[in-house]
Amino acid sequence: MAGVRSSNEQSYVITALVEHRPGVLFRVSNLFRRRNFNIENITVGTVDPTTARMTIVIKGDEKVVEQVVKQLNKLVDVVRVSTLDPENSVIRELALVKVHAPNSTARGDIVQFAEVFRGRVVDASRESLIVEVTGTPDKIDAFIDLMKTYGVKELARTGITAMVRGPKTVPG
Amino acid sequence: MAGVRSSNEQSYVITALVEHRPGVLFRVSNLFRRRNFNIENITVGTVDPTTARMTIVIKGDEKVVEQVVKQLNKLVDVVRVSTLDPENSVIRELALVKVHAPNSTARGDIVQFAEVFRGRVVDASRESLIVEVTGTPDKIDAFIDLMKTYGVKELARTGITAMVRGPKTVPG
Repeated sequence: MAGVRSSNEQSYVITALVEHRPGVLFRVSNLFRRRNFNIENITVGTVDPTTARMTIVIKGDEKVVEQVVKQLNKLVDVVRVSTLDPENSVIRELALVKVHAPNSTARGDIVQFAEVFRGRVVDASRESLIVEVTGTPDKIDAFIDLMKTYGVKELARTGITAMVRGPKTVPG
Repeated sequence: MAGVRSSNEQSYVITALVEHRPGVLFRVSNLFRRRNFNIENITVGTVDPTTARMTIVIKGDEKVVEQVVKQLNKLVDVVRVSTLDPENSVIRELALVKVHAPNSTARGDIVQFAEVFRGRVVDASRESLIVEVTGTPDKIDAFIDLMKTYGVKELARTGITAMVRGPKTVPG
């Protein structure tokens, strides 16, 4: 997702600290709608009672991203905007995948795949398992593809959140 | 978060399957703004190339929820809306917490707490650690509170996604 090229188009990850008040999501989504920007992802998480943090992924060239950042900065609710370098950031999404598992063979297989993906079985019934899996969108896509063999009954994803890594000192 | 009462107000978790096309987030957030509904959470996750799933948490009484569901059903992009019972659902959020960790004592403590919360250290530098933690919003709040002793440098949360548990058969 982030950093994937197709011709000149690339996905960019933008984070925006915003005031946590009614209407802010409306104003941000209105901005994207009016300018015809193509949002691939938007998540809103609480930072403290007065601040939220949005993670937005848009597809476009560098000019588009510059425009988006400029427009976001103009909104009254926006405190700070930054563009993340995917190479130097932690990008994570969470998915809940309900998989058809009517017998012990299927259950055993699914539990094993969940372990390989460092996922967790968070619910079990006679008919199905719910697996929680986290990672980059690509990793989650790969897990879902594997589960399709058994039958994906339901799927719920959060969209990504992201953060710049700490500064690295190369040893030597 | 979900299911917590204060007077007659309670948090309700609503999921909506929507057509995955530009402007849908704008139309949903516009609906909430016009009606003055108080959104506590909204996440949008891809289900397949043409469908997305929104998880919305709103505060209010039963009447408010009925109204929201009715209004959402009227939107052209909306395929299906359901209200989840928090008692019978898996509710999950993901958080990335960058914690100040300038020495081995702090790092040791933080790694230990991360293990207790079944979190993962996903980045380490001389100055800080980034911990990925998943769970209910309450569990994530508790982890963040603990990390405040060391100093939370940055925080990114996805907001919640949710799913009804599989049907249970009580043995006996």
